[in-house]
Amino acid sequence: MIKIALIGFGTVGRGFAKALIYNRNIIQRKIGEFRVTAICDSKSSITGDFKIEDAIKYKLDKGRLPENRNAEDIIELGDFDVLVETTPTDVFSGEPGLSYIKKALTTGRDVITSNKGPLVVAYRELMTLAERHGAKIGFEATVGGAMPVVKMIRDELAGNRIRRIRGILNGTTNYILSRMEKEKAPYPQILSEAQELGIAEADPGYDVEGIDAGAKLVILANSVFGKDVKFDDVEVRGITRITPEAFEIAVEKGYTIRLIAEADEDGKLEVSPRLVKLTNPLAIYGTLNAVLIETDLAGEIFVIGRGAGERETASALISDLVDFYGNCSFH
Amino acid sequence: MIKIALIGFGTVGRGFAKALIYNRNIIQRKIGEFRVTAICDSKSSITGDFKIEDAIKYKLDKGRLPENRNAEDIIELGDFDVLVETTPTDVFSGEPGLSYIKKALTTGRDVITSNKGPLVVAYRELMTLAERHGAKIGFEATVGGAMPVVKMIRDELAGNRIRRIRGILNGTTNYILSRMEKEKAPYPQILSEAQELGIAEADPGYDVEGIDAGAKLVILANSVFGKDVKFDDVEVRGITRITPEAFEIAVEKGYTIRLIAEADEDGKLEVSPRLVKLTNPLAIYGTLNAVLIETDLAGEIFVIGRGAGERETASALISDLVDFYGNCSFH
Repeated sequence: MIKIALIGFGTVGRGFAKALIYNRNIIQRKIGEFRVTAICDSKSSITGDFKIEDAIKYKLDKGRLPENRNAEDIIELGDFDVLVETTPTDVFSGEPGLSYIKKALTTGRDVITSNKGPLVVAYRELMTLAERHGAKIGFEATVGGAMPVVKMIRDELAGNRIRRIRGILNGTTNYILSRMEKEKAPYPQILSEAQELGIAEADPGYDVEGIDAGAKLVILANSVFGKDVKFDDVEVRGITRITPEAFEIAVEKGYTIRLIAEADEDGKLEVSPRLVKLTNPLAIYGTLNAVLIETDLAGEIFVIGRGAGERETASALISDLVDFYGNCSFH
Repeated sequence: MIKIALIGFGTVGRGFAKALIYNRNIIQRKIGEFRVTAICDSKSSITGDFKIEDAIKYKLDKGRLPENRNAEDIIELGDFDVLVETTPTDVFSGEPGLSYIKKALTTGRDVITSNKGPLVVAYRELMTLAERHGAKIGFEATVGGAMPVVKMIRDELAGNRIRRIRGILNGTTNYILSRMEKEKAPYPQILSEAQELGIAEADPGYDVEGIDAGAKLVILANSVFGKDVKFDDVEVRGITRITPEAFEIAVEKGYTIRLIAEADEDGKLEVSPRLVKLTNPLAIYGTLNAVLIETDLAGEIFVIGRGAGERETASALISDLVDFYGNCSFH
């Protein structure tokens, strides 16, 4: 019986909880019996013998959970094997997730997180901490949402030397650039339409300045190339200064413009708007994410998937759960 | 120390052997020390204390290996943990690979194969045999070459219900169709040019009649959807009757024609030339393979990779090796 404590009960946390309900049979076939023994948001909690369904309903009805234990208490005293950490991301401090994750690893519990912050701020420290305490840390959900990338490279390309990764790691900017390409409209107009549609946030800086993509690139560079880089090591340029004229010239010559995140084995680490041939697989449209992985044996591998969304993030979190506790047998 | 016996020492077998040499450090970091303790082709063998390099050189110089033990002997008496089976494919009898694989599994040895035949003929039987004897069987290399698909679906999409898989699983036919689309030339002409380039075989039926793609689809349907289907259950139509006129009409309306293999959870199992929108990700060009996987949580996942080639197949074989014996930790 795998016992799960869930810290963070916003969209991502509830999405994970719902996926555990909907696909319980599929998951159980792979990891055996499991139970959520504690859930906690920023101000309230539920522990003991409860149903996930009831916790979701309570939170939606009352905006909180029935008990008042905080995350520290739950991590310190709770009865669980794995912490699923889905608190909001802060890529500069890593908090509050960083403290939660450290505490869980230090007590020998495994951790699965969708939160980029802790890994961007302290990747190497967290890996070392996990190893020292015989614990595991999974972070597939931090890069590319449902798009298989972190474990896909680790496992499916295990015999390869990875030379370079180029990707579109932010769906919001890709949506804006796709529309600028098609409609020849100026950036501010498309941005405000994206905000109305809920694709861009009211404060869009995190996406449009390339910070989100840069954070994901730090995680990839550390996990794939074994580097020890931080956010400050990434050369980051956003999309805010791209004009309709730039698009017009690009398209005329058979190119488009996309926000490309690139890391290679030699240490290159850059997020910037780049000319991409219209025939290049990275010339994708809409909110999708994509990665192009250059290897020595497998050649180029290209993957497209949905980079965000509650079900998509749940898919990635569950893949880590199965990675930790699954039997990995085929049908 | 993992001991490997390699049966089949043609292009695929030698490609695997070479990859073990070139990327020994990468592989060793993941599975620890390993050694090839036996290699055997259809008429000769090498066992005992030898270097992989020397075996490759001997074979290239003399067209054979120095000893005369056959595969049965090696599997029965050899000192190894895992059989890597790379003999030629026969999707109707499964032989000779099927007998070798059964023998190895029955003696509790793990098996990794690039040979579709045994899995197409006896998928369920082999899985049962492996389970009964506490052995593992890996077959990533049988579908899509270096393109991650079998384990990617099993692991990265582990929490998902898989609804449908559509893919381009044969590079030769995709190359021919790509050129027919671009050049408006008739099938026989493009086929013979592909044969001159070594992309199509002298006897091209296996590829162009859709047999190869159908065989791969059987393996996917069994492993992903838990079916028990055989080659005869696949509705197969090849590409031999497609005319330049068909392409002309298709392209005029924004479509192309591709050989699509499709399996779904309801039992659909079909390989046929289909109209594919030019904007569809499956409208790929050249000898590449691709799959589009429809899931409940992750939405659609799309992967492109090289479907054949000695290094590419080696990449897939090694990924199974790491799946069996790796520690799966991150950098």
